[in-house]
Amino acid sequence: MKLLVVGSVAYDAIETPFGKTNKILGGAGTYVSLASTYVEADVQLVSVVGGDFEQKYLDLLQNHHVDIKGIQVKEKEKTFFWSGKYHNNMNSRDTLVTELNVLGSFDPILPEEYKDTEFLMLGNLSPDVQRKVIEQMNKKPKLIVMDTMNFWMDTMLDELKQTISMVDVISINDEEARQLSGEYSLLKAAKAIFKMGPSTVIIKKGEHGALLFQNDDVFFAPAVLLEEVFDPTGAGDTFAGGFAGYLAGSNDISFENMKRAVVYGSVMASFCVEKFGTEGLINRSIDDIDARMKEFTKLTSFKP
Amino acid sequence: MKLLVVGSVAYDAIETPFGKTNKILGGAGTYVSLASTYVEADVQLVSVVGGDFEQKYLDLLQNHHVDIKGIQVKEKEKTFFWSGKYHNNMNSRDTLVTELNVLGSFDPILPEEYKDTEFLMLGNLSPDVQRKVIEQMNKKPKLIVMDTMNFWMDTMLDELKQTISMVDVISINDEEARQLSGEYSLLKAAKAIFKMGPSTVIIKKGEHGALLFQNDDVFFAPAVLLEEVFDPTGAGDTFAGGFAGYLAGSNDISFENMKRAVVYGSVMASFCVEKFGTEGLINRSIDDIDARMKEFTKLTSFKP
Repeated sequence: MKLLVVGSVAYDAIETPFGKTNKILGGAGTYVSLASTYVEADVQLVSVVGGDFEQKYLDLLQNHHVDIKGIQVKEKEKTFFWSGKYHNNMNSRDTLVTELNVLGSFDPILPEEYKDTEFLMLGNLSPDVQRKVIEQMNKKPKLIVMDTMNFWMDTMLDELKQTISMVDVISINDEEARQLSGEYSLLKAAKAIFKMGPSTVIIKKGEHGALLFQNDDVFFAPAVLLEEVFDPTGAGDTFAGGFAGYLAGSNDISFENMKRAVVYGSVMASFCVEKFGTEGLINRSIDDIDARMKEFTKLTSFKP
Repeated sequence: MKLLVVGSVAYDAIETPFGKTNKILGGAGTYVSLASTYVEADVQLVSVVGGDFEQKYLDLLQNHHVDIKGIQVKEKEKTFFWSGKYHNNMNSRDTLVTELNVLGSFDPILPEEYKDTEFLMLGNLSPDVQRKVIEQMNKKPKLIVMDTMNFWMDTMLDELKQTISMVDVISINDEEARQLSGEYSLLKAAKAIFKMGPSTVIIKKGEHGALLFQNDDVFFAPAVLLEEVFDPTGAGDTFAGGFAGYLAGSNDISFENMKRAVVYGSVMASFCVEKFGTEGLINRSIDDIDARMKEFTKLTSFKP
């Protein structure tokens, strides 16, 4: 099935204990799209870039079967730029620069043929922009997944709650789930978030895995165990993208399939963090992905 | 089978955001023993207490089928006392008081009939005391499991490494594994610790679960998801005790059974943290434990 993705396409400059990059391809929309390109999902990306955005990156997205018709190019403006530096343990980072540029006035306009897409993934963006996308759809998609972050809880909580009330699945990290719900226990946090609208809640715990909640069901997927984490940038977006892409690719939104989708998201995120930026998601072979899915299955399987 | 346990039997005074206790029953040996009493393991506890130790606590251990013949009572001295206060999120604590008392000069003396026990669990204690227990055994037990902590890495690293070299399984938390190995990646840390002697390494991650490593095999068990954590005291000891007790009870040290033992340890630790001190481990029904084992199985199972 088709997957409609809305999210930033950006330039990132990243510093980790392993090295430093100049401006490279980044943005939630980019990570989400690349993560969902290896399943049978046709990705349509709605975003905005400036005149400084290099053609080679648009080519890269197209080479990964991403439909880029919905990417607006504002020739006279500059692409969204983010720069950050990770601390030694990779679990925390400082944002050095955030230049919104084209993203500051982003008005998402869906191409007509995108408006009937059955699977919609709202990457981390202003909740107003996310809502405007939902409102342009001809009918309610089969599944709407949204990712968001603490920044919107701090600055636009009312708008955020309005968008949350319109989606089926929300994906946030543990601290954000606690902030949004006011509950420390993640079990209680998920229950509180159900009341805001979503029927499914995903709580990402970074290197500690992810939890999937629906009604009274809970599923836990650990993160794939790696020898080295090189650059965590985009891991959360990749996870959410892999999740949404897997569901769209299989056109099955049962809880049992959502479990597999969470595992798929974890596997894609593990490839992401092994290299700088999006590099770990580029030209991946299906065999690589299958092998890691098998490794994952082994990690938690036991005979009761 | 029989399980020989050596570890502290103590008085604890605990403060959490939920309340505060006077001196109550505590100590690694206590938690380990109570956690392994619900499987078919006959627990023999070697420890030391002072004349101030209340008979009701010895009775409690005996009522839980713990053989207390190996608990020395030093009438003129005082029982080991620890007091700690947990911070709001329960993930960190301050130690307020540590009075070693009888534990400072603890010389473990094994009753003759304990010396052929096939399963030996060394609770967190001075590595010298742990070693003295191993040295008194008539022959190498089928399995030696040890728990330890960063305090011994800071103060008695050489002695600790000597004891580590004599055991089959070591159980430590993630920060301790990093400190002991000098590796940040837990996968690399486990490999480094294999070289110190143990063929199996367990890395406890508290609320984030536990990892079991053996050769190239890894198994991950999440922590049981709880609505409320009331008091984390003893959770790590309970986990290790549940693990060792399960193996002794089933007399099976295959990797497949060790996975089940890790799950059992997680389940027992989840009961532990729901109440103050050892209360959650007292008079537990087998049905409770079975129900939570099933809940656990559901938490990570999916059809690949």
